[in-house]
Amino acid sequence: MAALGSPPAPAAWLSAWRPTPGAACGLSGFDPSAKPCSLGDKAKDKASLDTLTAEIDALQDLFRADQRFKLLVVLQGTDTAGKDGTIRGVFGRTSPLGVHSVGWKVPTEEERAHDFLWRIHQRVPAAGEITVFNRSHYEDVLVPVVNGALTPAQVAQRMDHINAFERLLTDTGTVVLKFLLHIGADEQRERLQARLDDPTKHWKFSPGDLTVRQQWAAYQTAYDAVLNATSTAWAPWTVVPANSKTHRNLMVATVVRDTLLGLGLRYPPKDPSLVGLRVT
Amino acid sequence: MAALGSPPAPAAWLSAWRPTPGAACGLSGFDPSAKPCSLGDKAKDKASLDTLTAEIDALQDLFRADQRFKLLVVLQGTDTAGKDGTIRGVFGRTSPLGVHSVGWKVPTEEERAHDFLWRIHQRVPAAGEITVFNRSHYEDVLVPVVNGALTPAQVAQRMDHINAFERLLTDTGTVVLKFLLHIGADEQRERLQARLDDPTKHWKFSPGDLTVRQQWAAYQTAYDAVLNATSTAWAPWTVVPANSKTHRNLMVATVVRDTLLGLGLRYPPKDPSLVGLRVT
Repeated sequence: MAALGSPPAPAAWLSAWRPTPGAACGLSGFDPSAKPCSLGDKAKDKASLDTLTAEIDALQDLFRADQRFKLLVVLQGTDTAGKDGTIRGVFGRTSPLGVHSVGWKVPTEEERAHDFLWRIHQRVPAAGEITVFNRSHYEDVLVPVVNGALTPAQVAQRMDHINAFERLLTDTGTVVLKFLLHIGADEQRERLQARLDDPTKHWKFSPGDLTVRQQWAAYQTAYDAVLNATSTAWAPWTVVPANSKTHRNLMVATVVRDTLLGLGLRYPPKDPSLVGLRVT
Repeated sequence: MAALGSPPAPAAWLSAWRPTPGAACGLSGFDPSAKPCSLGDKAKDKASLDTLTAEIDALQDLFRADQRFKLLVVLQGTDTAGKDGTIRGVFGRTSPLGVHSVGWKVPTEEERAHDFLWRIHQRVPAAGEITVFNRSHYEDVLVPVVNGALTPAQVAQRMDHINAFERLLTDTGTVVLKFLLHIGADEQRERLQARLDDPTKHWKFSPGDLTVRQQWAAYQTAYDAVLNATSTAWAPWTVVPANSKTHRNLMVATVVRDTLLGLGLRYPPKDPSLVGLRVT
Protein backbone atom coordinates (compact mmCIF):
# COMPACT_ATOMS: atom_id res chain seq x y z
CA MET A 1 0.00 0.00 0.00
CA ALA A 2 1.30 3.45 -0.82
CA ALA A 3 2.25 5.40 2.27
CA LEU A 4 -0.20 8.14 3.36
CA GLY A 5 2.48 10.77 2.78
CA SER A 6 3.70 9.43 -0.57
CA PRO A 7 4.24 12.37 -2.91
CA PRO A 8 2.16 12.46 -6.11
CA ALA A 9 3.66 10.83 -9.22
CA PRO A 10 6.19 13.21 -10.77
CA ALA A 11 5.51 15.01 -14.04
CA ALA A 12 7.44 13.75 -17.08
CA TRP A 13 10.04 16.54 -16.96
CA LEU A 14 10.72 15.81 -13.29
CA SER A 15 11.22 12.06 -13.74
CA ALA A 16 14.48 12.80 -15.52
CA TRP A 17 15.80 14.39 -12.31
CA ARG A 18 14.63 11.62 -10.00
CA PRO A 19 17.29 8.89 -9.84
CA THR A 20 15.80 5.43 -10.25
CA PRO A 21 16.55 3.24 -7.23
CA GLY A 22 19.18 0.66 -7.99
CA ALA A 23 19.82 1.96 -11.53
CA ALA A 24 23.37 2.90 -10.55
CA CYS A 25 22.98 6.39 -11.90
CA GLY A 26 25.55 8.85 -10.69
CA LEU A 27 25.76 12.59 -10.23
CA SER A 28 28.03 12.79 -13.28
CA GLY A 29 24.96 11.99 -15.38
CA PHE A 30 23.32 15.27 -14.35
CA ASP A 31 24.38 18.61 -15.85
CA PRO A 32 24.71 21.21 -13.05
CA SER A 33 24.05 24.00 -15.58
CA ALA A 34 20.83 22.53 -17.00
CA LYS A 35 17.60 24.53 -16.69
CA PRO A 36 14.68 22.14 -17.13
CA CYS A 37 12.13 24.59 -15.65
CA SER A 38 13.34 27.71 -17.41
CA LEU A 39 10.91 29.84 -19.41
CA GLY A 40 13.72 31.05 -21.63
CA ASP A 41 15.28 33.99 -19.83
CA LYS A 42 16.14 35.09 -16.33
CA ALA A 43 13.51 37.84 -16.10
CA LYS A 44 10.72 35.40 -16.95
CA ASP A 45 12.14 32.85 -14.52
CA LYS A 46 12.19 35.43 -11.72
CA ALA A 47 8.60 36.44 -12.44
CA SER A 48 7.58 32.79 -12.41
CA LEU A 49 9.37 32.28 -9.10
CA ASP A 50 7.50 35.26 -7.61
CA THR A 51 4.21 33.65 -8.59
CA LEU A 52 5.28 30.28 -7.20
CA THR A 53 6.38 31.63 -3.82
CA ALA A 54 3.04 33.44 -3.47
CA GLU A 55 1.25 30.18 -4.33
CA ILE A 56 3.34 28.30 -1.77
CA ASP A 57 2.44 30.91 0.84
CA ALA A 58 -1.29 30.42 0.17
CA LEU A 59 -0.95 26.62 0.08
CA GLN A 60 0.99 26.64 3.35
CA ASP A 61 -1.92 28.38 5.06
CA LEU A 62 -4.29 25.70 3.78
CA PHE A 63 -1.77 22.95 4.66
CA ARG A 64 -1.70 24.22 8.25
CA ALA A 65 -5.49 24.29 8.46
CA ASP A 66 -5.91 20.85 6.86
CA GLN A 67 -3.82 19.08 9.57
CA ARG A 68 -3.72 15.73 7.75
CA PHE A 69 -0.15 16.01 6.50
CA LYS A 70 3.36 17.09 7.47
CA LEU A 71 6.01 18.16 4.98
CA LEU A 72 9.72 17.52 5.41
CA VAL A 73 12.02 19.17 2.88
CA VAL A 74 15.62 17.92 2.96
CA LEU A 75 18.30 20.09 1.37
CA GLN A 76 21.69 18.52 0.77
CA GLY A 77 24.64 19.76 -1.24
CA THR A 78 28.29 20.64 -0.95
CA ASP A 79 29.48 23.96 0.53
CA THR A 80 28.16 26.94 -1.51
CA ALA A 81 25.63 24.72 -3.34
CA GLY A 82 22.97 27.15 -2.14
CA LYS A 83 21.11 25.56 0.76
CA ASP A 84 20.62 28.88 2.61
CA GLY A 85 19.71 30.64 -0.62
CA THR A 86 17.12 28.02 -1.50
CA ILE A 87 15.41 28.40 1.87
CA ARG A 88 15.32 32.17 1.43
CA GLY A 89 14.29 31.97 -2.24
CA VAL A 90 11.56 29.35 -1.91
CA PHE A 91 10.19 29.96 1.60
CA GLY A 92 11.17 33.61 2.13
CA ARG A 93 7.63 34.75 1.38
CA THR A 94 5.95 32.32 3.75
CA SER A 95 5.03 33.09 7.36
CA PRO A 96 7.42 31.63 9.96
CA LEU A 97 4.22 30.41 11.65
CA GLY A 98 4.12 27.31 9.50
CA VAL A 99 7.64 26.88 8.13
CA HIS A 100 10.54 25.92 10.35
CA SER A 101 14.13 25.50 9.27
CA VAL A 102 16.65 23.35 11.10
CA GLY A 103 20.36 23.78 10.40
CA TRP A 104 22.22 20.61 11.29
CA LYS A 105 25.77 20.99 12.63
CA VAL A 106 28.43 18.55 13.80
CA PRO A 107 26.71 16.41 16.47
CA THR A 108 27.21 17.37 20.11
CA GLU A 109 28.62 14.92 22.65
CA GLU A 110 25.10 14.08 23.85
CA GLU A 111 23.90 13.53 20.28
CA ARG A 112 26.85 11.26 19.50
CA ALA A 113 25.97 9.19 22.55
CA HIS A 114 22.73 8.20 20.78
CA ASP A 115 22.00 6.55 17.42
CA PHE A 116 22.42 8.90 14.45
CA LEU A 117 18.67 9.31 13.87
CA TRP A 118 17.88 10.23 17.49
CA ARG A 119 18.39 13.96 17.11
CA ILE A 120 16.77 13.99 13.67
CA HIS A 121 13.56 12.32 14.85
CA GLN A 122 13.08 15.04 17.48
CA ARG A 123 12.84 17.77 14.83
CA VAL A 124 10.56 16.26 12.17
CA PRO A 125 7.41 18.27 11.41
CA ALA A 126 4.14 17.93 13.32
CA ALA A 127 0.71 17.90 11.64
CA GLY A 128 0.24 20.97 9.46
CA GLU A 129 3.91 21.97 9.69
CA ILE A 130 6.56 22.38 7.02
CA THR A 131 10.11 21.75 8.20
CA VAL A 132 13.15 22.41 6.05
CA PHE A 133 16.36 20.58 6.91
CA ASN A 134 19.51 22.51 6.00
CA ARG A 135 21.76 19.44 5.83
CA SER A 136 20.29 16.34 7.45
CA HIS A 137 20.80 12.72 8.51
CA TYR A 138 22.47 12.24 5.12
CA GLU A 139 25.59 13.91 6.53
CA ASP A 140 25.96 10.67 8.51
CA VAL A 141 26.36 8.63 5.31
CA LEU A 142 28.63 11.21 3.66
CA VAL A 143 31.22 12.63 6.07
CA PRO A 144 32.18 9.36 7.81
CA VAL A 145 32.21 7.56 4.44
CA VAL A 146 34.64 10.05 2.92
CA ASN A 147 36.75 10.02 6.06
CA GLY A 148 36.82 6.22 6.14
CA ALA A 149 35.21 5.96 9.57
CA LEU A 150 32.64 3.34 8.55
CA THR A 151 32.94 -0.10 6.97
CA PRO A 152 30.87 -0.78 3.82
CA ALA A 153 28.61 -3.01 5.92
CA GLN A 154 28.04 -0.21 8.40
CA VAL A 155 27.23 2.22 5.59
CA ALA A 156 24.75 -0.23 4.07
CA GLN A 157 23.13 -0.69 7.46
CA ARG A 158 22.74 3.07 7.89
CA MET A 159 21.12 3.34 4.45
CA ASP A 160 18.61 0.65 5.48
CA HIS A 161 17.90 2.49 8.73
CA ILE A 162 17.32 5.72 6.82
CA ASN A 163 14.89 4.04 4.43
CA ALA A 164 12.95 2.48 7.29
CA PHE A 165 12.89 5.78 9.19
CA GLU A 166 11.61 7.69 6.17
CA ARG A 167 8.99 4.99 5.58
CA LEU A 168 7.79 5.47 9.17
CA LEU A 169 7.45 9.17 8.48
CA THR A 170 5.56 8.76 5.20
CA ASP A 171 3.29 6.01 6.58
CA THR A 172 2.20 8.47 9.25
CA GLY A 173 1.41 11.33 6.90
CA THR A 174 4.74 13.05 6.29
CA VAL A 175 5.58 13.97 2.72
CA VAL A 176 9.36 13.74 2.36
CA LEU A 177 10.99 15.73 -0.46
CA LYS A 178 14.77 15.41 -0.75
CA PHE A 179 16.72 17.84 -2.92
CA LEU A 180 20.35 17.38 -3.86
CA LEU A 181 21.67 20.79 -4.94
CA HIS A 182 24.19 19.96 -7.63
CA ILE A 183 26.93 22.43 -8.61
CA GLY A 184 30.11 21.97 -10.62
CA ALA A 185 33.64 22.19 -9.18
CA ASP A 186 34.43 25.41 -11.10
CA GLU A 187 31.27 27.07 -9.84
CA GLN A 188 32.21 26.15 -6.27
CA ARG A 189 35.67 27.68 -6.68
CA GLU A 190 34.14 30.98 -7.78
CA ARG A 191 31.64 31.01 -4.94
CA LEU A 192 34.22 30.21 -2.26
CA GLN A 193 36.47 32.95 -3.61
CA ALA A 194 33.55 35.39 -3.53
CA ARG A 195 32.99 34.58 0.13
CA LEU A 196 36.62 35.43 0.83
CA ASP A 197 36.55 38.66 -1.12
CA ASP A 198 33.17 40.10 -0.11
CA PRO A 199 33.16 41.67 3.40
CA THR A 200 29.45 40.83 3.75
CA LYS A 201 30.13 37.17 2.99
CA HIS A 202 33.42 36.18 4.58
CA TRP A 203 31.74 35.27 7.88
CA LYS A 204 30.34 32.29 5.97
CA PHE A 205 33.82 31.05 5.03
CA SER A 206 35.54 28.39 7.10
CA PRO A 207 39.08 27.14 6.37
CA GLY A 208 37.57 23.65 6.69
CA ASP A 209 35.68 24.34 3.45
CA LEU A 210 38.97 24.01 1.57
CA THR A 211 39.69 20.62 3.11
CA VAL A 212 36.27 19.40 2.03
CA ARG A 213 36.85 20.85 -1.45
CA GLN A 214 39.98 18.73 -1.79
CA GLN A 215 37.81 15.68 -1.17
CA TRP A 216 35.48 16.64 -4.06
CA ALA A 217 35.73 13.34 -5.95
CA ALA A 218 35.22 11.28 -2.80
CA TYR A 219 32.10 13.24 -1.93
CA GLN A 220 30.67 12.80 -5.44
CA THR A 221 31.13 9.04 -5.05
CA ALA A 222 29.51 9.11 -1.64
CA TYR A 223 26.55 11.05 -3.05
CA ASP A 224 26.18 8.49 -5.84
CA ALA A 225 25.89 5.76 -3.22
CA VAL A 226 23.28 7.79 -1.33
CA LEU A 227 21.19 8.34 -4.45
CA ASN A 228 21.28 4.67 -5.36
CA ALA A 229 20.46 3.41 -1.89
CA THR A 230 17.88 5.92 -0.68
CA SER A 231 15.93 7.24 -3.66
CA THR A 232 12.85 5.31 -2.64
CA ALA A 233 9.32 5.52 -4.02
CA TRP A 234 8.10 6.99 -0.73
CA ALA A 235 10.94 9.50 -0.27
CA PRO A 236 12.50 10.26 -3.66
CA TRP A 237 15.56 12.37 -4.30
CA THR A 238 15.40 15.19 -6.82
CA VAL A 239 18.73 16.25 -8.29
CA VAL A 240 18.60 20.03 -8.76
CA PRO A 241 21.07 21.60 -11.20
CA ALA A 242 22.27 24.52 -9.09
CA ASN A 243 24.86 26.50 -11.04
CA SER A 244 22.08 29.04 -11.67
CA LYS A 245 20.64 30.34 -8.41
CA THR A 246 17.41 31.64 -9.95
CA HIS A 247 16.71 28.40 -11.74
CA ARG A 248 17.61 26.34 -8.67
CA ASN A 249 14.96 28.19 -6.67
CA LEU A 250 12.48 27.94 -9.54
CA MET A 251 12.88 24.18 -9.75
CA VAL A 252 12.62 23.53 -6.01
CA ALA A 253 9.63 25.88 -5.76
CA THR A 254 7.93 24.10 -8.67
CA VAL A 255 8.32 20.69 -7.02
CA VAL A 256 7.12 21.99 -3.65
CA ARG A 257 4.10 23.76 -5.20
CA ASP A 258 3.17 20.74 -7.34
CA THR A 259 3.50 18.42 -4.37
CA LEU A 260 1.26 20.58 -2.18
CA LEU A 261 -1.29 20.90 -5.00
CA GLY A 262 -1.27 17.12 -5.47
CA LEU A 263 -2.35 16.48 -1.89
CA GLY A 264 -5.92 17.70 -2.41
CA LEU A 265 -5.78 19.96 0.63
CA ARG A 266 -9.04 21.36 2.07
CA TYR A 267 -10.23 23.38 5.02
CA PRO A 268 -11.58 21.04 7.70
CA PRO A 269 -15.37 20.61 7.75
CA LYS A 270 -17.25 22.72 10.30
CA ASP A 271 -18.01 21.10 13.64
CA PRO A 272 -21.81 20.57 13.64
CA SER A 273 -22.05 22.03 17.16
CA LEU A 274 -20.88 25.40 15.80
CA VAL A 275 -23.58 25.75 13.14
CA GLY A 276 -25.77 28.80 13.75
CA LEU A 277 -23.81 29.89 16.83
CA ARG A 278 -23.84 33.65 17.58
CA VAL A 279 -21.09 35.32 19.61
CA THR A 280 -22.41 37.70 22.27
CA MET B 1 25.00 48.10 34.65
CA ALA B 2 22.67 47.89 31.69
CA ALA B 3 22.27 44.35 30.41
CA LEU B 4 24.08 43.50 27.16
CA GLY B 5 20.77 42.86 25.46
CA SER B 6 18.95 45.93 26.83
CA PRO B 7 16.96 47.48 24.00
CA PRO B 8 17.80 51.06 23.01
CA ALA B 9 15.90 53.86 24.77
CA PRO B 10 12.47 54.22 23.16
CA ALA B 11 11.59 57.19 20.99
CA ALA B 12 9.22 59.75 22.52
CA TRP B 13 6.13 58.44 20.70
CA LEU B 14 6.87 54.91 21.92
CA SER B 15 7.30 55.87 25.59
CA ALA B 16 3.56 56.54 25.75
CA TRP B 17 2.94 52.86 24.93
CA ARG B 18 5.47 51.48 27.40
CA PRO B 19 3.84 51.10 30.82
CA THR B 20 6.02 52.52 33.61
CA PRO B 21 6.85 49.81 36.16
CA GLY B 22 4.91 50.28 39.37
CA ALA B 23 2.90 53.22 38.05
CA ALA B 24 -0.28 51.18 38.35
CA CYS B 25 -1.31 51.96 34.81
CA GLY B 26 -3.94 49.66 33.39
CA LEU B 27 -4.99 48.51 29.96
CA SER B 28 -8.07 50.73 30.21
CA GLY B 29 -5.70 53.69 29.82
CA PHE B 30 -4.79 52.57 26.29
CA ASP B 31 -7.14 53.11 23.35
CA PRO B 32 -7.28 49.92 21.23
CA SER B 33 -8.23 51.99 18.17
CA ALA B 34 -5.34 54.47 18.41
CA LYS B 35 -2.84 54.71 15.54
CA PRO B 36 0.32 56.36 16.84
CA CYS B 37 2.42 55.22 13.85
CA SER B 38 -0.09 55.99 11.12
CA LEU B 39 0.91 58.16 8.19
CA GLY B 40 -2.67 59.29 7.72
CA ASP B 41 -4.35 56.63 5.61
CA LYS B 42 -4.32 52.89 5.11
CA ALA B 43 -2.60 52.90 1.71
CA LYS B 44 0.33 54.90 3.08
CA ASP B 45 0.51 52.68 6.14
CA LYS B 46 0.63 49.56 3.96
CA ALA B 47 3.39 51.04 1.82
CA SER B 48 5.33 51.94 4.95
CA LEU B 49 4.88 48.40 6.27
CA ASP B 50 6.25 47.00 3.00
CA THR B 51 9.37 49.10 3.40
CA LEU B 52 9.75 48.10 7.04
CA THR B 53 9.45 44.36 6.39
CA ALA B 54 12.10 44.63 3.67
CA GLU B 55 14.36 46.50 6.12
CA ILE B 56 13.77 43.83 8.77
CA ASP B 57 14.69 41.16 6.24
CA ALA B 58 18.01 42.90 5.48
CA LEU B 59 18.72 43.55 9.16
CA GLN B 60 17.98 39.93 10.02
CA ASP B 61 20.68 38.80 7.61
CA LEU B 62 23.17 41.14 9.31
CA PHE B 63 21.90 40.10 12.76
CA ARG B 64 22.62 36.45 11.89
CA ALA B 65 26.13 37.29 10.65
CA ASP B 66 26.94 39.50 13.65
CA GLN B 67 26.36 36.68 16.19
CA ARG B 68 26.62 38.96 19.25
CA PHE B 69 22.89 39.13 19.98
CA LYS B 70 19.72 37.08 20.16
CA LEU B 71 16.22 38.50 19.75
CA LEU B 72 13.17 37.20 21.58
CA VAL B 73 9.83 38.66 20.52
CA VAL B 74 6.93 37.82 22.84
CA LEU B 75 3.40 38.21 21.50
CA GLN B 76 0.55 38.13 23.99
CA GLY B 77 -3.09 39.01 23.59
CA THR B 78 -6.57 37.59 23.94
CA ASP B 79 -8.09 35.27 21.29
CA THR B 80 -8.36 37.03 17.89
CA ALA B 81 -6.03 39.85 19.02
CA GLY B 82 -3.88 39.02 15.99
CA LYS B 83 -0.84 37.07 17.15
CA ASP B 84 -0.72 34.86 14.03
CA GLY B 85 -1.40 37.86 11.79
CA THR B 86 1.40 39.86 13.38
CA ILE B 87 3.91 37.07 12.77
CA ARG B 88 2.83 36.87 9.14
CA GLY B 89 2.66 40.64 8.69
CA VAL B 90 5.97 41.54 10.34
CA PHE B 91 8.14 38.49 9.64
CA GLY B 92 6.40 37.08 6.55
CA ARG B 93 9.09 38.55 4.27
CA THR B 94 12.03 37.20 6.27
CA SER B 95 13.80 33.90 5.55
CA PRO B 96 12.83 31.06 7.90
CA LEU B 97 16.60 30.54 8.19
CA GLY B 98 16.88 33.16 10.91
CA VAL B 99 13.36 33.55 12.29
CA HIS B 100 11.68 30.82 14.30
CA SER B 101 8.19 30.94 15.74
CA VAL B 102 7.07 28.89 18.72
CA GLY B 103 3.36 28.48 19.41
CA TRP B 104 2.81 27.68 23.09
CA LYS B 105 -0.10 25.40 23.95
CA VAL B 106 -1.48 23.98 27.19
CA PRO B 107 1.51 22.31 28.92
CA THR B 108 1.93 18.57 28.50
CA GLU B 109 2.11 16.21 31.45
CA GLU B 110 5.91 16.21 31.26
CA GLU B 111 6.03 20.00 31.09
CA ARG B 112 3.71 20.32 34.08
CA ALA B 113 6.05 18.05 36.04
CA HIS B 114 8.72 20.80 35.82
CA ASP B 115 8.79 24.46 36.84
CA PHE B 116 6.82 26.73 34.50
CA LEU B 117 9.94 28.24 32.88
CA TRP B 118 11.53 24.87 32.07
CA ARG B 119 9.94 24.42 28.67
CA ILE B 120 10.32 28.11 27.84
CA HIS B 121 14.07 28.16 28.50
CA GLN B 122 14.58 25.33 26.01
CA ARG B 123 13.21 27.42 23.13
CA VAL B 124 14.89 30.82 23.61
CA PRO B 125 16.96 32.03 20.64
CA ALA B 126 20.62 31.18 20.09
CA ALA B 127 23.21 33.72 18.91
CA GLY B 128 22.10 35.35 15.66
CA GLU B 129 18.57 33.95 15.89
CA ILE B 130 15.21 35.68 16.10
CA THR B 131 12.53 33.71 17.95
CA VAL B 132 8.90 34.78 18.07
CA PHE B 133 6.77 33.41 20.90
CA ASN B 134 3.09 33.07 19.97
CA ARG B 135 1.83 33.19 23.60
CA SER B 136 4.52 32.60 26.21
CA HIS B 137 5.39 32.11 29.89
CA TYR B 138 2.93 34.93 30.56
CA GLU B 139 0.08 32.46 30.09
CA ASP B 140 1.25 31.05 33.45
CA VAL B 141 0.43 34.33 35.21
CA LEU B 142 -2.85 34.83 33.35
CA VAL B 143 -4.84 31.59 33.02
CA PRO B 144 -4.27 30.26 36.59
CA VAL B 145 -4.86 33.74 38.00
CA VAL B 146 -8.23 34.07 36.27
CA ASN B 147 -9.16 30.54 37.24
CA GLY B 148 -8.16 31.10 40.87
CA ALA B 149 -5.54 28.35 40.90
CA LEU B 150 -2.80 30.48 42.47
CA THR B 151 -2.66 32.53 45.68
CA PRO B 152 -1.58 36.19 45.38
CA ALA B 153 1.76 35.24 46.96
CA GLN B 154 2.30 32.53 44.34
CA VAL B 155 1.49 34.97 41.56
CA ALA B 156 3.94 37.54 42.96
CA GLN B 157 6.61 34.86 43.17
CA ARG B 158 6.07 33.89 39.54
CA MET B 159 6.37 37.53 38.47
CA ASP B 160 9.72 37.72 40.32
CA HIS B 161 10.90 34.52 38.65
CA ILE B 162 9.92 35.89 35.24
CA ASN B 163 11.84 39.13 35.85
CA ALA B 164 14.94 37.22 36.97
CA PHE B 165 14.69 34.86 33.99
CA GLU B 166 14.39 37.71 31.51
CA ARG B 167 17.30 39.47 33.21
CA LEU B 168 19.40 36.32 32.68
CA LEU B 169 18.49 36.40 29.00
CA THR B 170 19.29 40.10 28.53
CA ASP B 171 22.52 39.91 30.53
CA THR B 172 23.68 37.25 28.10
CA GLY B 173 22.87 39.15 24.93
CA THR B 174 19.19 38.52 24.30
CA VAL B 175 17.06 41.49 23.39
CA VAL B 176 13.56 40.84 24.77
CA LEU B 177 10.65 42.70 23.18
CA LYS B 178 7.23 42.02 24.62
CA PHE B 179 4.10 43.11 22.77
CA LEU B 180 0.63 43.08 24.26
CA LEU B 181 -1.85 43.15 21.37
CA HIS B 182 -4.75 45.15 22.72
CA ILE B 183 -8.24 44.88 21.15
CA GLY B 184 -11.63 45.98 22.41
CA ALA B 185 -14.44 43.64 23.44
CA ASP B 186 -16.64 44.66 20.49
CA GLU B 187 -13.83 44.03 18.03
CA GLN B 188 -13.33 40.57 19.49
CA ARG B 189 -17.03 39.74 19.12
CA GLU B 190 -16.89 40.62 15.42
CA ARG B 191 -13.72 38.61 14.84
CA LEU B 192 -15.02 35.51 16.64
CA GLN B 193 -18.25 35.69 14.65
CA ALA B 194 -16.23 35.99 11.43
CA ARG B 195 -14.35 32.81 12.35
CA LEU B 196 -17.65 31.00 12.73
CA ASP B 197 -19.09 32.31 9.48
CA ASP B 198 -16.09 32.01 7.14
CA PRO B 199 -15.40 28.43 5.93
CA THR B 200 -11.68 29.26 5.61
CA LYS B 201 -11.54 30.43 9.23
CA HIS B 202 -13.79 28.21 11.32
CA TRP B 203 -10.98 25.70 11.93
CA LYS B 204 -9.49 28.42 14.15
CA PHE B 205 -12.60 28.56 16.33
CA SER B 206 -12.79 26.62 19.56
CA PRO B 207 -15.89 26.56 21.80
CA GLY B 208 -13.45 27.29 24.65
CA ASP B 209 -12.95 30.75 23.14
CA LEU B 210 -16.44 31.69 24.31
CA THR B 211 -15.69 30.65 27.88
CA VAL B 212 -12.58 32.82 27.86
CA ARG B 213 -14.59 35.68 26.37
CA GLN B 214 -16.98 35.52 29.33
CA GLN B 215 -13.95 36.09 31.59
CA TRP B 216 -13.01 39.27 29.69
CA ALA B 217 -12.91 41.58 32.74
CA ALA B 218 -10.89 39.11 34.80
CA TYR B 219 -8.31 38.81 32.03
CA GLN B 220 -8.01 42.59 31.70
CA THR B 221 -7.28 42.77 35.43
CA ALA B 222 -4.73 39.97 35.15
CA TYR B 223 -3.02 41.78 32.25
CA ASP B 224 -2.87 44.96 34.33
CA ALA B 225 -1.03 43.04 37.06
CA VAL B 226 1.39 41.61 34.47
CA LEU B 227 2.16 45.04 33.02
CA ASN B 228 2.79 46.52 36.44
CA ALA B 229 4.98 43.69 37.68
CA THR B 230 7.01 42.80 34.59
CA SER B 231 7.48 45.92 32.47
CA THR B 232 11.14 46.14 33.40
CA ALA B 233 13.84 48.37 31.99
CA TRP B 234 15.57 45.33 30.49
CA ALA B 235 12.45 43.66 29.07
CA PRO B 236 9.77 46.31 28.54
CA TRP B 237 6.20 45.71 27.46
CA THR B 238 4.80 47.62 24.52
CA VAL B 239 1.01 47.91 24.43
CA VAL B 240 -0.04 47.73 20.78
CA PRO B 241 -3.48 49.08 19.88
CA ALA B 242 -4.72 46.25 17.67
CA ASN B 243 -8.22 47.03 16.44
CA SER B 244 -6.58 47.94 13.12
CA LYS B 245 -4.60 45.02 11.69
CA THR B 246 -2.51 47.14 9.33
CA HIS B 247 -1.55 49.60 12.02
CA ARG B 248 -0.84 46.81 14.53
CA ASN B 249 1.69 45.33 12.11
CA LEU B 250 3.10 48.75 11.31
CA MET B 251 3.72 49.51 14.98
CA VAL B 252 5.30 46.15 15.83
CA ALA B 253 7.47 46.32 12.69
CA THR B 254 8.58 49.84 13.59
CA VAL B 255 9.68 48.79 17.07
CA VAL B 256 11.47 45.69 15.75
CA ARG B 257 13.24 47.67 13.00
CA ASP B 258 14.24 50.49 15.38
CA THR B 259 15.52 47.99 17.94
CA LEU B 260 17.65 46.16 15.37
CA LEU B 261 18.99 49.46 14.02
CA GLY B 262 19.88 50.58 17.55
CA LEU B 263 22.15 47.59 18.13
CA GLY B 264 24.89 48.85 15.83
CA LEU B 265 25.09 45.53 13.98
CA ARG B 266 28.11 44.82 11.77
CA TYR B 267 29.57 41.99 9.73
CA PRO B 268 32.28 40.23 11.75
CA PRO B 269 35.86 41.30 10.98
CA LYS B 270 37.77 39.04 8.58
CA ASP B 271 39.91 36.36 10.15
CA PRO B 272 43.53 37.49 9.47
CA SER B 273 44.45 33.98 8.31
CA LEU B 274 42.04 34.36 5.37
CA VAL B 275 43.55 37.58 3.96
CA GLY B 276 44.89 37.07 0.44
CA LEU B 277 43.79 33.42 0.30
CA ARG B 278 43.03 32.06 -3.21
CA VAL B 279 40.72 29.09 -3.74
CA THR B 280 42.10 26.53 -6.18
